[in-house]
Amino acid sequence: MSKIEIVEVGMRDGLQNEAVHLNGEQRYEFAKRLAGAGLKRIEAGAFVSPKWVPQMADSGALLQKLFSAQKNKKFASNVRWSALVPNLIGYEQAVNVGVKDIAIFGAVSETFSQKNINSSVKESFERFTGVMEQAKKDRVRVRGYVSTVFGCPYEGRITVKQAMKVIERYFELGIYELSVGDTIGVATPKQVKELLQQFQKNKWISKTAMHFHDTRGTALANIAESLDFGIKVFDSSLGGLGGCPYAPGAAGNVATEDVVYLLEGMGYRTGLDLDKLIKTTEWMTKQLGRPLVSRLSLAGDF
Amino acid sequence: MSKIEIVEVGMRDGLQNEAVHLNGEQRYEFAKRLAGAGLKRIEAGAFVSPKWVPQMADSGALLQKLFSAQKNKKFASNVRWSALVPNLIGYEQAVNVGVKDIAIFGAVSETFSQKNINSSVKESFERFTGVMEQAKKDRVRVRGYVSTVFGCPYEGRITVKQAMKVIERYFELGIYELSVGDTIGVATPKQVKELLQQFQKNKWISKTAMHFHDTRGTALANIAESLDFGIKVFDSSLGGLGGCPYAPGAAGNVATEDVVYLLEGMGYRTGLDLDKLIKTTEWMTKQLGRPLVSRLSLAGDF
Repeated sequence: MSKIEIVEVGMRDGLQNEAVHLNGEQRYEFAKRLAGAGLKRIEAGAFVSPKWVPQMADSGALLQKLFSAQKNKKFASNVRWSALVPNLIGYEQAVNVGVKDIAIFGAVSETFSQKNINSSVKESFERFTGVMEQAKKDRVRVRGYVSTVFGCPYEGRITVKQAMKVIERYFELGIYELSVGDTIGVATPKQVKELLQQFQKNKWISKTAMHFHDTRGTALANIAESLDFGIKVFDSSLGGLGGCPYAPGAAGNVATEDVVYLLEGMGYRTGLDLDKLIKTTEWMTKQLGRPLVSRLSLAGDF
Repeated sequence: MSKIEIVEVGMRDGLQNEAVHLNGEQRYEFAKRLAGAGLKRIEAGAFVSPKWVPQMADSGALLQKLFSAQKNKKFASNVRWSALVPNLIGYEQAVNVGVKDIAIFGAVSETFSQKNINSSVKESFERFTGVMEQAKKDRVRVRGYVSTVFGCPYEGRITVKQAMKVIERYFELGIYELSVGDTIGVATPKQVKELLQQFQKNKWISKTAMHFHDTRGTALANIAESLDFGIKVFDSSLGGLGGCPYAPGAAGNVATEDVVYLLEGMGYRTGLDLDKLIKTTEWMTKQLGRPLVSRLSLAGDF
């Protein structure tokens, strides 16, 4: 039986898109429940301006609390808490509270890059380079997020050629893993196959995580396709937290519990407790005061 | 580009599980919209007792109206309206109003068969045989539905061996097509693969339709897997109509518009108009007074 790693992005990619903002205590409780369900890789926050992303305010204090609790053995020692950093200032803040796993975020689409991170693709790589250099010195691991790989809300379909041009540059940076994002949930297994064939040629598969959104219901089909290429890491968000900012009411990040059901049903090991995940989604529904759309939280395990 | 046939089951499998009962005029309007979106195979009703399934009452009158409208060229001549018949009495009623495509319904699971169609698996085949004999004489086409192929709400997981034992008997009957149902939406591509490998050995693929429910989000992944085996016919229900009777609030039949998005995105031709399907789901939402859970109706096409 093959092992699959789930990177839980609900605390960051999920919560940052929710209208209701959770406080530090709620976010800590969420983290505790995620670790309790067996998650080993949890992106817990972002060192971004609270003016732009108020949901991520006080990520420093939260991470400090998590690391300190971990030292006191309240969490398994192999749980890795990561944080997103937009630039060197954010990087320093993260490292100062003990973060050893950081993530950088960019896009294939020029328009999305401009509107979402307020810089051109070229400028974003200039910032990435600065962060990478410092991270190498500090022995901090850097994960890359590349968004709008299959489609962009402003530019429409993205071709494999367009995507590959930007993706190449991430691997050149020296990141340990690239999270390949279908940001608005438009890919089908055909597009996934065409892209991963290129990844195979470049021997990138072992450094690749796939990050699917279920906006058009294709996320699990795309995960199944990725498994055929030997992909071993998938991003997901508890309960499908976050939704889709470009289509109100629609699904966003694929739900962690739905991914776990698929993987375990296909004979892969995730090490996660599906029942605890579903209970955490129920808990989260109460915190947000809105129903979450994960299939498993409605249907239950089988 | 390969062509895929969609069998729309929303008027029967969908509506029969809805708490709000549509009247004849609404059901006719629904049929009109489905045909208008390009559907060529539509299961329009069932000749069952209105005492047991009030939602299907007056299916005879509805089908009569549809056939007469078709004669008057209100529908394309190649739209096929089918109906479910539980026994010879229902069969006669269907044929009397001009039905040329009927469907019979059974289960792999003994308990499900008892609770759902009130007879043992053995008894159901006795009835099927009677219907088949008459249908052959009348040159009426018979489609088989086999339910609970991957799992049963009462008996749990169903093995390939268990399923194959019952499925064999359907093909022996001489049906032109078997619709293989994941009635409570529990299958993953692994189970689909294991079953379809057996179908391949038996040369049944060209006579097989797959009927998936999206209760645990795996329907599109299972369809993608089925395509790899050369399956060319899929059942679906507009908007995911019907839901899951065994898990209130959960998804049931995979939504027609979600299937179309997947298939067209993968380069298959369905001949269906996605925009019209989505508009029909919006219309249906108003008739039922409840939101439908199809991904595409929330997210829109891309």
